[in-house]
Amino acid sequence: MARHDLSALIVPSADPHQGEYVPSRFMTRAFVSGFAGSAGTVVITPDEAGLWTDSRYFLEAEEVLRGTPFRLFRLHSGDTPDYPQWLASTLGPGSRVAVDGQVVTLAWHQRTLPVLAQAKIDLVAVEDPFDQIWQDRPGFPAEPVYPLSGQITGRSAREKLESLQKEMEHQGARSHVISTLDDIAWILNLRGSDVPFNPVFLAYLTLSQEAAPTLFTAPDRVTSEAREALAAAGVELRAYGDFGDHLRRLPEPVLLDPERTSWTVASQISPREVRLTQQPSTGMKARKNRTEAAHLREAHRRDGLAMVRFLAWLERAVEGDESLNELDLAGKLQEFRRADPRYVSDSFSAISGINGNGAIVHYSATPERAASLTPPAIYLIDSGAQYQDGTTDITRTVAITRPGETADLARAFPGVERDFTLVLKGHIALATLIFPEGTPGREIDAIARTPLWRELRNYGHGTGHGVGFFLNVHEGPQRIAPGSSDAPLQEGMICSNEPGLYRPGLYGIRIENLVHLTTVPEPSPFGTFLRFETLSLCPIDRNLIDRELLTPQEREWLDQYHRRVCETLGGDLSREDRSWLERATAPIS
Amino acid sequence: MARHDLSALIVPSADPHQGEYVPSRFMTRAFVSGFAGSAGTVVITPDEAGLWTDSRYFLEAEEVLRGTPFRLFRLHSGDTPDYPQWLASTLGPGSRVAVDGQVVTLAWHQRTLPVLAQAKIDLVAVEDPFDQIWQDRPGFPAEPVYPLSGQITGRSAREKLESLQKEMEHQGARSHVISTLDDIAWILNLRGSDVPFNPVFLAYLTLSQEAAPTLFTAPDRVTSEAREALAAAGVELRAYGDFGDHLRRLPEPVLLDPERTSWTVASQISPREVRLTQQPSTGMKARKNRTEAAHLREAHRRDGLAMVRFLAWLERAVEGDESLNELDLAGKLQEFRRADPRYVSDSFSAISGINGNGAIVHYSATPERAASLTPPAIYLIDSGAQYQDGTTDITRTVAITRPGETADLARAFPGVERDFTLVLKGHIALATLIFPEGTPGREIDAIARTPLWRELRNYGHGTGHGVGFFLNVHEGPQRIAPGSSDAPLQEGMICSNEPGLYRPGLYGIRIENLVHLTTVPEPSPFGTFLRFETLSLCPIDRNLIDRELLTPQEREWLDQYHRRVCETLGGDLSREDRSWLERATAPIS
Repeated sequence: MARHDLSALIVPSADPHQGEYVPSRFMTRAFVSGFAGSAGTVVITPDEAGLWTDSRYFLEAEEVLRGTPFRLFRLHSGDTPDYPQWLASTLGPGSRVAVDGQVVTLAWHQRTLPVLAQAKIDLVAVEDPFDQIWQDRPGFPAEPVYPLSGQITGRSAREKLESLQKEMEHQGARSHVISTLDDIAWILNLRGSDVPFNPVFLAYLTLSQEAAPTLFTAPDRVTSEAREALAAAGVELRAYGDFGDHLRRLPEPVLLDPERTSWTVASQISPREVRLTQQPSTGMKARKNRTEAAHLREAHRRDGLAMVRFLAWLERAVEGDESLNELDLAGKLQEFRRADPRYVSDSFSAISGINGNGAIVHYSATPERAASLTPPAIYLIDSGAQYQDGTTDITRTVAITRPGETADLARAFPGVERDFTLVLKGHIALATLIFPEGTPGREIDAIARTPLWRELRNYGHGTGHGVGFFLNVHEGPQRIAPGSSDAPLQEGMICSNEPGLYRPGLYGIRIENLVHLTTVPEPSPFGTFLRFETLSLCPIDRNLIDRELLTPQEREWLDQYHRRVCETLGGDLSREDRSWLERATAPIS
Repeated sequence: MARHDLSALIVPSADPHQGEYVPSRFMTRAFVSGFAGSAGTVVITPDEAGLWTDSRYFLEAEEVLRGTPFRLFRLHSGDTPDYPQWLASTLGPGSRVAVDGQVVTLAWHQRTLPVLAQAKIDLVAVEDPFDQIWQDRPGFPAEPVYPLSGQITGRSAREKLESLQKEMEHQGARSHVISTLDDIAWILNLRGSDVPFNPVFLAYLTLSQEAAPTLFTAPDRVTSEAREALAAAGVELRAYGDFGDHLRRLPEPVLLDPERTSWTVASQISPREVRLTQQPSTGMKARKNRTEAAHLREAHRRDGLAMVRFLAWLERAVEGDESLNELDLAGKLQEFRRADPRYVSDSFSAISGINGNGAIVHYSATPERAASLTPPAIYLIDSGAQYQDGTTDITRTVAITRPGETADLARAFPGVERDFTLVLKGHIALATLIFPEGTPGREIDAIARTPLWRELRNYGHGTGHGVGFFLNVHEGPQRIAPGSSDAPLQEGMICSNEPGLYRPGLYGIRIENLVHLTTVPEPSPFGTFLRFETLSLCPIDRNLIDRELLTPQEREWLDQYHRRVCETLGGDLSREDRSWLERATAPIS
């Protein structure tokens, strides 16, 4: 820093591709601070060092930073300034603040620059500042890149590229740079495993009116089948390191997504020749085609089998007084999923929380601290898988009681049935909603909360996120959440429907199914309407429902859903598991 | 234009104070084009002239512009470009486009400049371009400016100014300019009548850390009581024309609201010394204090009496076969309101629509075209008043039938009961909603639409707008509407609750009450919750309700509301009217 005359260095937790999971090679913030949480930014000045993170990680950060020179800045708590404000008020005029321009977006730069400029502080880009000082730095990922068949994707890479080319021309651009890995995987119908949970591979993709689309990645790990697929789509394959040179020679104007393109990439193009917009592939990818939708139904059927086998096993394990902790439970569920030949990986790190741990929204059990299951208990399990034919994400909250001791539950957790049933009412309200095409998700989020609000309850997370097709379990542009973007809900999109309720120290409740947006076929003079098709198939614990709180319509929804679960899954289960399923899906009316 | 080397002149329909109603002196767009609609912009080039307006005014504009050189640009229909885009594509580089900088906001300038700059067109401000060429231009309004007593306002002008001063300092500003007339009237507890419907007066108000707050208006029409009130609040009174000089000498930084301050005013201050934010008075004004709320309840009681007398009279008039048209009806309702000693004016031009005219959302009857009332009919009346103790706004939709001929209604308007009852269900859903403090109105708008959406119906306007206290009937910052701002709903705010349904050519349905936001007193670990107190008191037509579509809870709400209407109003009515009210509010259960 002294050699480059820098007053501060910002180290975010991101990579050049703005993904949810950062490949180990880019975990510079963890390298420098020891803090490994998914969200956090380090700032280093010659005199001080700080870590900014949110309430999910306060405890973990305190422990990790104890005895180090790092000071913890607790975001959104009290008057804690965010790091740009802190820098503006701490450094003097003329200071130079550096960041690796590759790991921040153009939009970040546009937001941060004015804050620093007001304090007459310069913001400068440095290239990969840790490359010199990080010994034993992990290398570039070398996992195979492989193709998906047209039977799976429903649309060839060539067709997708042609649509993008048209969109690019429509926007008056002569080329287009795509940095986000799920967009690249979707466009090219390729998958990889460079990061955990998301089946993607590190790459850039460029399109231009004058040359073939070009994929930049580590070429030696691209399978011969993938090479054939690329050739068939007319895509050139080049080394990841060649991207920079190529970028500077792209014909202008260049279409870029400011939220999904690094400052370094954007700064290679003259500002007048940049066309900024949400990248077209993001919207196309979100609207699943009929082939993808059909596969998703099938993937959810098999995922439902794994869930049912797990819950049936769980009941027997409790009856048999087996000693189990949160990690044992998550491991057992993974075991059932792994048995599926099309299972690739989990789609995120399962949240397996007993009692009060279920109330920690981003809880992650560790071997040292995993709680043990002792009836009566409330158990929350939020999990999902990547199958070759679809991504799943499901949460169930179940009552854990020994046979004949159900009354203990009500004594141990007074009010839990009311809480659970109110969450269920919200879930059903959203599942059965009909609404105009194009409504932003934030404008229907309240539908799932109204039953909770009525009794002065609420939950602190969004009701739904988009989900990819054998891709990222969190995918945009749509969300169903307060204050989220105006991205319209459209036919073909997949969302989660996951209202919840959390009683700190006692229990957490969440009921999550994935839903698929379909058009209501009846015509209306008032426009096109959408409804949700529920994809996830697994019983909702009847033991936690206070049926008196449900309307006849809500009971009917539940019974119909359970009938569908039982009919769809029953035939593929052992007699023992089928018997459990039949009891778990018996009518409530 | 030639003398000033201008390629185009933009003439918006606005005045320097960005109000909903423009004083006649500032109706330059109507002067130059003959088009008098409330929304529209004229652009004049040496070769062409165009009027941009929206679908409400297509018919009127076509008629007015026939035989003139003006071309009509239909906004939001097909590919019609808005005027900045049209100018950018029509004029050559180096062109100069002029606008009166007084009648556009700083925010308009910030949005329009980049569109023109991309086509290398300059945007220049001209001062009041019509002053030279408009003979017989109306003068500066000279209506009296008078004070409200502390018993009415609940908070003195001095207290309000002190709060603003604090907020100004908190934002790091040394002065503050307020251009919007309802903010000025609210802060100073003064009222006037310079424009129709809104009890405001043309003025600017400045605050500074170094001098007394200063009001700029035509001083000779300020009553001696108002002068005393200003003196008591420590406010100086100066001529409207002195504002410009004063502005240039204000200590910087200056706090400005970019959406509520003209480009001309903002351009007097160096850009680095401007602090842009929503002006603090807007949020303060929106949250009614206890005194204002108590007066509002009382004003709504008397407004309810006028409505009940009108509806009872209407039933008798129909029985007596009186010949009545839409203007007669609106006039009669105004007559009942005028009888109130505290009536000042209507709060907007009443919408009085029979059958298909009720389906025209911004319908305005004219003597030439007012429809006549012939049973059976559906009649929609949306109206309100300014009383010295509050502003009202209420819509009722009623069935008009001759005695014993109610069956004719169902034959003439099949499905109207279902439509009406679905709208009522939406109205009740919002009226009974409980939700977290701070939720933006756009995130609860869907609550009022869900029952309509379920049957593939919808309406094309927002569900609610803010309402002033003896001030503008449309007031920000809050709205309950899709795509509207993120302004949080807070205790004390007044909103309308007005879902509707429109069958073009057949009938329009709207049920509107004003509601007051109050805090739910019970504490909750999940935060503070708000609910709505319904202020408007008038029966909802039982003859249009299909009670089978209502849930027991909805019937109970209706019966309770009707009981409250009858108990609150009954004692002040003639025997004849009371008898009508008792029938109109009889329980539906």
